[in-house]
Amino acid sequence: MRPIKRTCIVGAGAIGSLFAGHLASVAESTVLVRRREHADLLNREGLRVSGKSELHSRVLAATDPAELGDVDLAIIATKANAVEDSVRRLQGHFPNATVMTVQNGLGCEAMAAQFGDWPIISAVTFMSGTRHSDTHVEYELDTATWMGPWAQGCADFETTRQVTDLIVRAGLKAEAFPDLLPAQWSKLIFNSAVNSIAAVTDLPHVKLFAMRESLSDLGHLVCAMMAEAGRVAAARGIELYEDPWEMNVKAVSKGMTGYDAYAHVPSMLDDVRARRPTEIDWITGAVVREAQALGVPAPIHETMYRLVKAREASWNLTATTH
Amino acid sequence: MRPIKRTCIVGAGAIGSLFAGHLASVAESTVLVRRREHADLLNREGLRVSGKSELHSRVLAATDPAELGDVDLAIIATKANAVEDSVRRLQGHFPNATVMTVQNGLGCEAMAAQFGDWPIISAVTFMSGTRHSDTHVEYELDTATWMGPWAQGCADFETTRQVTDLIVRAGLKAEAFPDLLPAQWSKLIFNSAVNSIAAVTDLPHVKLFAMRESLSDLGHLVCAMMAEAGRVAAARGIELYEDPWEMNVKAVSKGMTGYDAYAHVPSMLDDVRARRPTEIDWITGAVVREAQALGVPAPIHETMYRLVKAREASWNLTATTH
Repeated sequence: MRPIKRTCIVGAGAIGSLFAGHLASVAESTVLVRRREHADLLNREGLRVSGKSELHSRVLAATDPAELGDVDLAIIATKANAVEDSVRRLQGHFPNATVMTVQNGLGCEAMAAQFGDWPIISAVTFMSGTRHSDTHVEYELDTATWMGPWAQGCADFETTRQVTDLIVRAGLKAEAFPDLLPAQWSKLIFNSAVNSIAAVTDLPHVKLFAMRESLSDLGHLVCAMMAEAGRVAAARGIELYEDPWEMNVKAVSKGMTGYDAYAHVPSMLDDVRARRPTEIDWITGAVVREAQALGVPAPIHETMYRLVKAREASWNLTATTH
Repeated sequence: MRPIKRTCIVGAGAIGSLFAGHLASVAESTVLVRRREHADLLNREGLRVSGKSELHSRVLAATDPAELGDVDLAIIATKANAVEDSVRRLQGHFPNATVMTVQNGLGCEAMAAQFGDWPIISAVTFMSGTRHSDTHVEYELDTATWMGPWAQGCADFETTRQVTDLIVRAGLKAEAFPDLLPAQWSKLIFNSAVNSIAAVTDLPHVKLFAMRESLSDLGHLVCAMMAEAGRVAAARGIELYEDPWEMNVKAVSKGMTGYDAYAHVPSMLDDVRARRPTEIDWITGAVVREAQALGVPAPIHETMYRLVKAREASWNLTATTH
């Protein structure tokens, strides 16, 4: 891969803004957004990062990739359910770019690959932030982004390391893995249980998720669901990088910093409360599809998948049935 | 059993009020309630039934069974989670009564038996009403109450028929079964799926509960959950009276009258919306306990049981986590 001189972040939510704001210190940082007003504000005011970093970065923002010229690295930072639309807009652009996806769940790399023959890097991120405005993001959890060459793409480990180095030089944490699947699946299994259960119980990620005393305790469900997904991963030949149950126990214990973000409201519960479509199809739905393809029983994942989809469907009912 | 001249309805919610209002036309109808004000109002104004019946009945109401004298038949008409407290108050009273329980789910007969050696009749009711005030109930769905001698009690079929006859003469629908278990389990399995799923998805009982087209359709879950409970019933030696899946399909189809009440908001969803404790322990929880005792796997029931309990737990969280 040639040196990374120019980057494009697609989607300037919290994660996208954190990448764009930091990368501006080591490369030309461009941003592709949906709203004209958002692009104008970013071009006029720049992008401010507060919290764990204090930066005020100059970025070039646009709603059309043609306005951004060629880039060396494009990071798709939208939610999973917006990836297809976002990458479709990149079709025919950025011919020399490496593309990195950084969504929760599975399948975003394959969606990106439909619209261009870019080398593709898989990533999962544990950092978090709060977007205070179109031009201001607060960097909260300064944990790492993990990345590796997508198994079905043509990015190599050397390219992945080059991207990791750039991100680290920009002031974020990043780590390169020759094979990201074990880490990606650990996070997938953790997210599949914690997010879907939070979404239908209206519970933030609290200690009850790790309690297994009485028959009705939620920890039994979390544990059984994670074990079920672990059998799917095993059938897929994947040895998990971290034990999702331990991630869960650590996350709900006090005094822990690594996953503290999850002690609050998981993103899927946040979506449900705001009545936004969730990422269930890419997370729990992805486990269900993998299980079916591999012939592994997954009754709990099927149950949780259908419940969250039904919860989404409830928003479209007419008021007369309420 | 001696002739039924005096009845006591314990709990004057919608179902209790329907029984009390109708039975007054064929027996002395007494009512045991919790609130003094409620008893006073009933004694002063009587009990009005509108809708499918038009009645204005004289009842004797009290908050203490000692004020009611002896009765021949006591019908426990509270919700399942209030049965234990209600029947505890009857201890030492009504020595000559037959006791009938009419709750959703399993286990209320056994709770009643703890507090007296009354002959016990099991019942499930399909009638429904709306309680407009302490002294006015609207009779909506004029479907039957099914009853049979409790398998572990000492009521006989003759007594059951005597009660059935009385209820029918009072203007309600009732049917006696030598063995109620097949009907009770059909309703249990139906309720376990429909109520728990409604409670966590916020969906009334609508057509989606019977849709099985795409992988994420809720009908797949309803069907799998009912099949799972069917295996528990079979291991218990019970041949179902009605197929719960067919009950479900009929209930969500237009033009059907028998179960129309369910086309609206199942009681457990109504409880969740009002943040009242649900009957989950007696319905889905009962299936989980039976499955464990019989060694039958029931992952979907375990999942739904824990989700509804967690949903209830979410109401007790402090505002800071929201």
